[in-house]
Amino acid sequence: MTTITKAACIGGGVIGGAWAARFALAGIDVAIYDPHPEAARIVGEVMANAERAYGLLTMAPLPPKGTLTFFNSIAEAVEGADWIQESVPERLELKRGVINQIDAAASPTALIGSSTSGLLPSDLQAEMKHPERLFVAHPYNPVYLLPLVELVGGAKTSAATIEKAKTGVAQIGMKGVVIAKEIEAFVGDRLLEALWREALWLIKDDICDTETLDDVMRYSFGMRWAQMGLFETYRIAGGEAGMRHFLAQFGPCLHWPWTKFTDVVDLDDALVEKIGAQSDAQARGRSIRELERIRDENLVGIMQALKSGNGGEGWGAGKLLADFEKRLWAEAGVKEAAPDTSAPLRLLDTRVNAAWVDYNGHMTEHRYLQLFGDTSDALLRLIGVDFAYVEAGHSYYTVETHIRHLGEAKLGQRLYTTLQILSHDDKRLHFFSTVNDAETGAALATAEQIMLHVDSAAGKSAPAPAAVLEKIAAIADGHARLPAPEGVGRHVGQKRA
Amino acid sequence: MTTITKAACIGGGVIGGAWAARFALAGIDVAIYDPHPEAARIVGEVMANAERAYGLLTMAPLPPKGTLTFFNSIAEAVEGADWIQESVPERLELKRGVINQIDAAASPTALIGSSTSGLLPSDLQAEMKHPERLFVAHPYNPVYLLPLVELVGGAKTSAATIEKAKTGVAQIGMKGVVIAKEIEAFVGDRLLEALWREALWLIKDDICDTETLDDVMRYSFGMRWAQMGLFETYRIAGGEAGMRHFLAQFGPCLHWPWTKFTDVVDLDDALVEKIGAQSDAQARGRSIRELERIRDENLVGIMQALKSGNGGEGWGAGKLLADFEKRLWAEAGVKEAAPDTSAPLRLLDTRVNAAWVDYNGHMTEHRYLQLFGDTSDALLRLIGVDFAYVEAGHSYYTVETHIRHLGEAKLGQRLYTTLQILSHDDKRLHFFSTVNDAETGAALATAEQIMLHVDSAAGKSAPAPAAVLEKIAAIADGHARLPAPEGVGRHVGQKRA
Repeated sequence: MTTITKAACIGGGVIGGAWAARFALAGIDVAIYDPHPEAARIVGEVMANAERAYGLLTMAPLPPKGTLTFFNSIAEAVEGADWIQESVPERLELKRGVINQIDAAASPTALIGSSTSGLLPSDLQAEMKHPERLFVAHPYNPVYLLPLVELVGGAKTSAATIEKAKTGVAQIGMKGVVIAKEIEAFVGDRLLEALWREALWLIKDDICDTETLDDVMRYSFGMRWAQMGLFETYRIAGGEAGMRHFLAQFGPCLHWPWTKFTDVVDLDDALVEKIGAQSDAQARGRSIRELERIRDENLVGIMQALKSGNGGEGWGAGKLLADFEKRLWAEAGVKEAAPDTSAPLRLLDTRVNAAWVDYNGHMTEHRYLQLFGDTSDALLRLIGVDFAYVEAGHSYYTVETHIRHLGEAKLGQRLYTTLQILSHDDKRLHFFSTVNDAETGAALATAEQIMLHVDSAAGKSAPAPAAVLEKIAAIADGHARLPAPEGVGRHVGQKRA
Repeated sequence: MTTITKAACIGGGVIGGAWAARFALAGIDVAIYDPHPEAARIVGEVMANAERAYGLLTMAPLPPKGTLTFFNSIAEAVEGADWIQESVPERLELKRGVINQIDAAASPTALIGSSTSGLLPSDLQAEMKHPERLFVAHPYNPVYLLPLVELVGGAKTSAATIEKAKTGVAQIGMKGVVIAKEIEAFVGDRLLEALWREALWLIKDDICDTETLDDVMRYSFGMRWAQMGLFETYRIAGGEAGMRHFLAQFGPCLHWPWTKFTDVVDLDDALVEKIGAQSDAQARGRSIRELERIRDENLVGIMQALKSGNGGEGWGAGKLLADFEKRLWAEAGVKEAAPDTSAPLRLLDTRVNAAWVDYNGHMTEHRYLQLFGDTSDALLRLIGVDFAYVEAGHSYYTVETHIRHLGEAKLGQRLYTTLQILSHDDKRLHFFSTVNDAETGAALATAEQIMLHVDSAAGKSAPAPAAVLEKIAAIADGHARLPAPEGVGRHVGQKRA
């Protein structure tokens, strides 16, 4: 797998900044060039949004964050970079000039992606010395959350470049979708444009207002498209008779005089003002920041829901997330050194997710157990019980858990968990975990748990192998010197000593 | 609130059958007329899908299911119905004839909704004696899950009819969105048609195949549209500069020669075959039934994710679901008689949801605690601690939980929970719950828990009021005569006696 070790972002606005954030959060150092006086502030804001979103999206162990460094010239920024992403304003001459400068200064093997949403890669690469490594890599807002990248090659782009580009975006958790032929606006913006034109007519003609139109989308086909797109949805609509039958039925109405987008709507001042006023009313006083937060939390929630889809295998953007997380876990496992056993192990750092709170904004009871479960999963990886181990037929199952609630956690609150091994034998693992507030260190909940090593196929307990038992012993020996945690060995309702 | 007590469905295909399922699952008896020889089978299949989807979607207490009765004439079916839904094939003369028959036979105050996806209500009501009660109620597939209903009145439809229609669809968990002016295909299908035309060109011109196009949608703007629609999404894109600024930027490109839908694509045999073959490849051998199952589970997951959105208040289709559930709980509370205390209370009947399982298809550990939490919530409602009580400032918080895992639950498995009160005083409530397999009755997990009555604002325990304590005592007195459950009072790891 080709890996990006250093990236350069030329142009650091909302799009370029989000590319930078994606790279840095995947552990890749990023060089940035943007002459805009506010570039550092804008990139910083996008980075903060991206970090918050990742914190909600995944509890997989992100690698140490890559650095963000600003440079005063394109030549300095692209030096040593193996992926250079151009995100300057959407004007052909400007982009071509910038790309030519990148081309001249960068290593000839570096990949050059353009964030253009409409210009043809053949036009962008026309004057390059090494045009074969130029391609369009068109992302979607919010770029730090939505995984799509349209990959489009021009006449001179090599097939190898497109393959490397696919691998590259996968490295930062994105989905590279290859468009077969270059056309202006590619595929996504073509579809968006079609819907947008018709929407403008519906507002102009007073068929509905902007809120009604949005409601029509989000209470119905928006949810269909979020997980299956257009054709697979219609395949189901065709039923057992199939896609061809569906098309035969749907075909004739294309000739009916329905849609108005065959005329170009005049987006004059009156229409702009009408839409602006309706949009203001629809927002109900929510600021752009608030809407952004709501949108990001919703997108996180949708991706997490899709991660559990298809019987737990994951579906669409959720499957992509699951695969990304598996890789992060695998890489984290490789890097892990012998743990410090002079204190309980600190195993999880997280934040209270929007999906975890009740209507009072407090973390729901069962999410504490989720955190305890993720904590014991982290311990299992430390002792060699990882995905591969489980797939080979053995695992540890929790048989008993005693939780005490000592405080409350609220939306967005930073938390960490610790774990201390209490006792163990060849089958049993007995330990005590704590969920703590990250600022004060105060314990919000504790769990005493016992897990049993099992043969999954037989559905019976079985002794763990020596390699696992040795790793357990190494931690348990250290923990045996620690005092027993307050609250161990109690039954429900037992008075404090 | 106007309530529907009896509904009639004239036409019982996939759409009519799903209307029938929605009504029946909301406790409303349904009369069906459909001369198709397979009508009963089709309605039965849709009903089964709907029941499965509802089982995944919500654990709120559905009322006793309404009956489905088939009749041999329209006149018999509509007798006594206060909502009549017409879902016959999409031909004006056919629909008009059916609607005229309904009009003649039904009570003059009965509402008549048409499921048409494109015909004008003014045309449908032209020959009616009581045209003021005719409106379009256009739903979206799968109708038993997607909540949208476009409500469109014709020239003779009364404003009161549209208001009653909104209330009526809310009663069955749907969202009535009123379209201001009637046009062919209303709002949703106009937007779908625009995107569909452009999509057909992209396939015909070999810009991409159907899978690529679907991926472009579902990894990006599909997820935006599922929760915010079009205009609110672009409002954010405009940033602090606002919607008007965004429109000013976007306006000019409407005149660019991008989109091809200004020409009508010829959906000839070659294009039908091309799309059919690409769609076959994309399905990877999955049957329509499998795709339907995946889609429904994804839609359930998205709606559940959105239910936790907006800081726990719910957003879009998720807010609608939350409101629907609140009403179901409130109505269930009103109807509940004094509980039978001669055995542990049976409080929850559910099925293992797709979002609850790990990659092995087993219910994840923390979902057991979710079931125990839902079980104790059900107990709280029984003793008068409902939404209103909590909003007024007091509640019970769980302080301690001891779970033992005795078995496993798999995707789709039916479960029920029981609860036995062990002890109580003016602040504490100590009880023992069990998650059982619904077929064998075997206990899969047990939980011993203590909850404390609290003053939420003060964040301190406080005595519960007499009315609550009386209800607790009534149950606890009965439960005191039951044997102590096996496993009470144990600490983690304690050997069995």
